[in-house]
This record gives sequence, structure tokens and C-alpha cells, in this order.
Amino acid sequence: MKISRDAYGRQLLAQYEGQEPTAEIVERDDGYIDTGSDPGAYFETYDEWPAIERRALKFARGRILDVGCGAGRHALHFQQKGLQVTGIDRSPGAVKVCRLRGLRKVLVRSITEIGKFKPGSFDTILMLGNNFGLFGSAVGARRLLKQLARITSGDARIIAGTRNPYVTTDPDHLQYQRLNKKRGRMPGQIRLRVRFGKIIGDWFDYLLVSPKEMESLLNNSDWEIDRLIGSGEPTYYAVIRKKVDRKIK
Amino acid sequence: MKISRDAYGRQLLAQYEGQEPTAEIVERDDGYIDTGSDPGAYFETYDEWPAIERRALKFARGRILDVGCGAGRHALHFQQKGLQVTGIDRSPGAVKVCRLRGLRKVLVRSITEIGKFKPGSFDTILMLGNNFGLFGSAVGARRLLKQLARITSGDARIIAGTRNPYVTTDPDHLQYQRLNKKRGRMPGQIRLRVRFGKIIGDWFDYLLVSPKEMESLLNNSDWEIDRLIGSGEPTYYAVIRKKVDRKIK
Repeated sequence: MKISRDAYGRQLLAQYEGQEPTAEIVERDDGYIDTGSDPGAYFETYDEWPAIERRALKFARGRILDVGCGAGRHALHFQQKGLQVTGIDRSPGAVKVCRLRGLRKVLVRSITEIGKFKPGSFDTILMLGNNFGLFGSAVGARRLLKQLARITSGDARIIAGTRNPYVTTDPDHLQYQRLNKKRGRMPGQIRLRVRFGKIIGDWFDYLLVSPKEMESLLNNSDWEIDRLIGSGEPTYYAVIRKKVDRKIK
Repeated sequence: MKISRDAYGRQLLAQYEGQEPTAEIVERDDGYIDTGSDPGAYFETYDEWPAIERRALKFARGRILDVGCGAGRHALHFQQKGLQVTGIDRSPGAVKVCRLRGLRKVLVRSITEIGKFKPGSFDTILMLGNNFGLFGSAVGARRLLKQLARITSGDARIIAGTRNPYVTTDPDHLQYQRLNKKRGRMPGQIRLRVRFGKIIGDWFDYLLVSPKEMESLLNNSDWEIDRLIGSGEPTYYAVIRKKVDRKIK
């Protein structure tokens, strides 16, 4: 990502430095604009995390890769606990904030570049803060799940958060889902860009899925849902494990 | 203003109803985007107002016209104190919120339509929350000051708030001021639009002035600065009075 377009990173830097305009401004490609969630969320500490996120994270162990690590709230927690953790984020600003906050292993790297890691490098993949969405699309999910299988150990798990797009009554969101179906996209495949000051980030696809859709995306992959946590909530978590029979296939 | 473009009014309604996405998103015509000030500010009560605003409002008396009354925080205060107050706002949503909050006299009317009021109707004109900016331009200020003189009594005053655009070190703002000079606008004449959900408001000009510029805009008008309150601050207030010798001219 070009630094000149890194609206997200500039926002995290501003929040880190305690500057004033800290709310996240997210624009969808139908013109819908939102100030996102709580501006302080990227810097929350363990006690401030949602209870279901803390529950999901109990399944983290071994060598951890935090995909889309943002300001490093999860990575820093595990580093402090003595685990071996690597953060990646495609935003140079986010990575800078992680370093300023003391995260030792952190790289400017997009999820599309995880193939660069050596086979069997990690035991746990974190995709938190709705970052299951970083798969971007059904095709992206299938391709990246394959790569994730390669760079992880035999009994690895992915701990991923997402939002069920169907738990809404907002007419704008429902209309957007219909638009998506019409253009051959998954209903929860939202095209977004972040804005900060004069910086306009690039458009990117972020995939929100229901538990059923997640299951179907994992079909015929090396992965399967081990457990869902908070699956009745709009935002929920999945612990996804490698299939034991995957070598047999 | 078309209701379908009333992003500002929809935002006030959402804030009134306590819905979630309440921060104000303001986009400038150079692409700069901001979440504006404190989302709760439009609903602040007397005790929460800036001290210098409360000081400025001590000069309000008689029949009051609140121009750009928003959610009615000032108008409701004076109504409660037993004064005769009329609110106007070009946003139908804002007017609806005022009515829901109990403001008795409030109209959907832009500042450009104040000529519709009868001569001598008001003793005090309020232009708060930086609403000196509603003059929009130097030309607009001169034209509207003339109309304000007509619809007010002999010893009327305007109580106006504005922000000194030069009290900034933000390179984006400084660059915008240079751009404005180049295109023959006052440096603090900012072109804005409000966004809320999928609603994109119309562009409008909002004029920020230094105390010196305000003085110069009042030159050769029926009005003069009586006193400046907080003129060393970024945001300051002016009590503007009718000139006593204006009939002689």
C-alpha cells in the first residue's frame, strides 16, 4: 500500500498520538458512509475486549500470526504473555504504530502475500476484528485457506472474527445486499475505503459471512469449523481447525 | 433543501433518537474529510456550552431569531426563560428535531430567505455554533446584513460565533487557504457538505473569519462590532450592534 493512500494507518497514528479527529470514516461503494465503531477500539486492552473474543482467544497457542494486526492490540497481549507472535498488516502506518508500541515482530505484508512465509511456520492464525473479512471473496477465501494450510503446522487453528451480515434491519444494508447479489457477489461482500483528512484509501473487498456461509466456504478446504463462539450475535468468532483426514484426500 | 439530501437533519434525528452512528461527517471540496466536533454538541445544555458562548449570550434580549438553530439548544434555552424566540433552519430534519424537543416557533427557512420576515420583527439575531459562517461569502455577508437590518428593531444586535481560520498549523488547512486565495475566495471560505449514511448533502459555503476580517465585512454596513468575546481563541464570539448614526447616512 502506498503511504500516500494509507488513510487507515494515518488514522491509527493519529489515535496513537492522541490527536483530535480519531473516529474511523469508512465509505462503501454505494455511497454509504459511516464513522465505524468506537474510535478507541484499536487500542483496547485485554479487559476491554468483548467477552466472546476473549473466549475465542483461549484457543490461541504456539507460534501466532496476527493477520491485519492493526495497532497490535492482540499481538502485544500475546507477546507480553511470552508467546511467539508475528503481526502483519498491509498498512505501513499500522505497522509503525505496532513498533512504537513495542511489538517486536511485525511486517508490512498483505494477507495476499502470506505465501512468503515458510511452510509450517505457525500454529495459530488470528483474524480478529472481523478480519475473516480479509479473505475478500469466496474465491479469495479458497485460495488463501490453501496457503494458510501450507504455512501452518499439522494441528493449526485459525481464530477468526466476522459479522453476520443478515442480522440487520437497516434498509441501506439490505439494499446493498440485494445489489451485491445482482452483481454476482456474496451479499456480505462489501467494498470499502477508509478516509482520513485528505487521504482517500484504495477500495478493498471485505467479506462478512453468516455461520452457514463460513461453513460452506470451508467445504473442500483443509479446514473445518471446530467451534463457533457467540454465533447468535451480529459479531461472532470461529475456531477453525485443520482437518485430521486432510492427508488422506 | 430536499429531504432526500438532508444529511445534516438525518444526523440530528439519529442523534435525537440515540441511534449509533452519530458523529458528524463533513467533507470539504478538496477531499478533506472530518468527523467534525463532539457528536453530542448539538444537544448540549446551558451548563455544557463554552463559557465564552454563555458570556456572549448575556447580550441576548427581546424577540430573538436563532438562525441555523440546529437541534434548538439555544432557542430552547431562551424559550424556557420566557423570551420570545423563533428558530429557523434550512434543514427539515433539524426543524423536526426542534419541534420534537418542544420548540414552539420554528420554521424550515434558509438565511437567504430572512427577507420574508416583517420589518422590525426581532431585537436579537443569534448566529451561534460558527454560524457567522452562514453568510457564506463577503458578498453574501453584505447582502444579508442589509436584510438583517431591515427585519430588526432600532437597537438590535447580532450575536455571532465564528472560528479564526488562521489559528491553525495544519498543512491541509493552510494549503486550502492558499487554494482559496488563488480562486478568488476568502481564505476561510470553506465549501462543505455533510454526509450521513447514504445521504450526501449539497455543497455549501461556510465563511470563517478573523476578527479583522469580520470588522472589514461590517464596513459600510448598518452594523458594527460592539465587543469581541474570546477573540484570542480559535472560536470566538462577536456582539454586533446597529450603528447609531445609520439613519444619517
